Amino acid sequence: MKKKRVAIDMDEVMADALGKLIRLYEDEYQLPVDQDELVGHYLDEVVHPDHRSAIRRYLFTEDFFEDLDVMPGSQDVVRQMHERYEIFIVTAAMEFPGSLRPKYRWLQQHFSFIPWSHYVFCGDKSIIQADFLIDDHAKNLVNFSGEPLLFSSPHNANETRFTRLNNWQEVSQYFLSDQ
Amino acid sequence: MKKKRVAIDMDEVMADALGKLIRLYEDEYQLPVDQDELVGHYLDEVVHPDHRSAIRRYLFTEDFFEDLDVMPGSQDVVRQMHERYEIFIVTAAMEFPGSLRPKYRWLQQHFSFIPWSHYVFCGDKSIIQADFLIDDHAKNLVNFSGEPLLFSSPHNANETRFTRLNNWQEVSQYFLSDQ
Repeated sequence: MKKKRVAIDMDEVMADALGKLIRLYEDEYQLPVDQDELVGHYLDEVVHPDHRSAIRRYLFTEDFFEDLDVMPGSQDVVRQMHERYEIFIVTAAMEFPGSLRPKYRWLQQHFSFIPWSHYVFCGDKSIIQADFLIDDHAKNLVNFSGEPLLFSSPHNANETRFTRLNNWQEVSQYFLSDQ
Repeated sequence: MKKKRVAIDMDEVMADALGKLIRLYEDEYQLPVDQDELVGHYLDEVVHPDHRSAIRRYLFTEDFFEDLDVMPGSQDVVRQMHERYEIFIVTAAMEFPGSLRPKYRWLQQHFSFIPWSHYVFCGDKSIIQADFLIDDHAKNLVNFSGEPLLFSSPHNANETRFTRLNNWQEVSQYFLSDQ
């Protein structure tokens, strides 16, 4: 039987971009980010208004995406899913063209069992044809033709339209527990 | 009414990669490539057997994809199609990671009317959901769920399974003539 296809987003799902943004911001401005304020908001909405442009500046830094931490549990769960599903990594890399090579290297380093033939660097994810899409952005899920799955991130805390997976343990339960 | 979506391949369709490969080969080895021998074959199948690896070496050169010629007529036709269809550029860039940035810059330079949100750099194109796919490789068309359209290139001369578009004039006739 043909394996079902799961498309998985990178930032905030496999790679901890938010964690690095907070670290860079706190280091530069010596101001702590209040985790409670992040609930339902993006980081640039909760930092001091004068500092908002810094967040985009970090994202456009050539090596920003090079050394992001791997989201806890994602490697083990994706490796197990890879045996039972066809996994594609689908990331909206085009907004930050400097991220293209770093994202490629990051995937080769941390998810080497996924072949490059299954990387997709895109912008608008409505082009993606898959059975499932795991993503932290509602805008990517809303036009998806398969089963949309919202991966929890502080910014999407108030989103209620999609099945929510809070962490990789819940991804594992969703995809691997009943087989 | 929602615009129909057309996915368009880059190399050999929008960008003349073969032309540059032949130029580089002829310059390096001072041997002419016989255009008749290319019919039904890839370039590395018709060059001297001792030189085959050179073709892949050119493709892996960092700037190979930076300055490819635009395929004749493609800019005008894609611009006109852009008004009536939703255009995505879909290129199998992942085999040559050095091509990611050059391909991005090439698109920005030569097809600036297509937003980056509509670039897709991928490997396996079966992930693409569109109404039409224009591509020179049968392997990309065979699993496509929309209408597959084979763009002529010497290597696919003997391919008979798909509707064939020989050049951008024929693409124009196919997409623009009856509207």
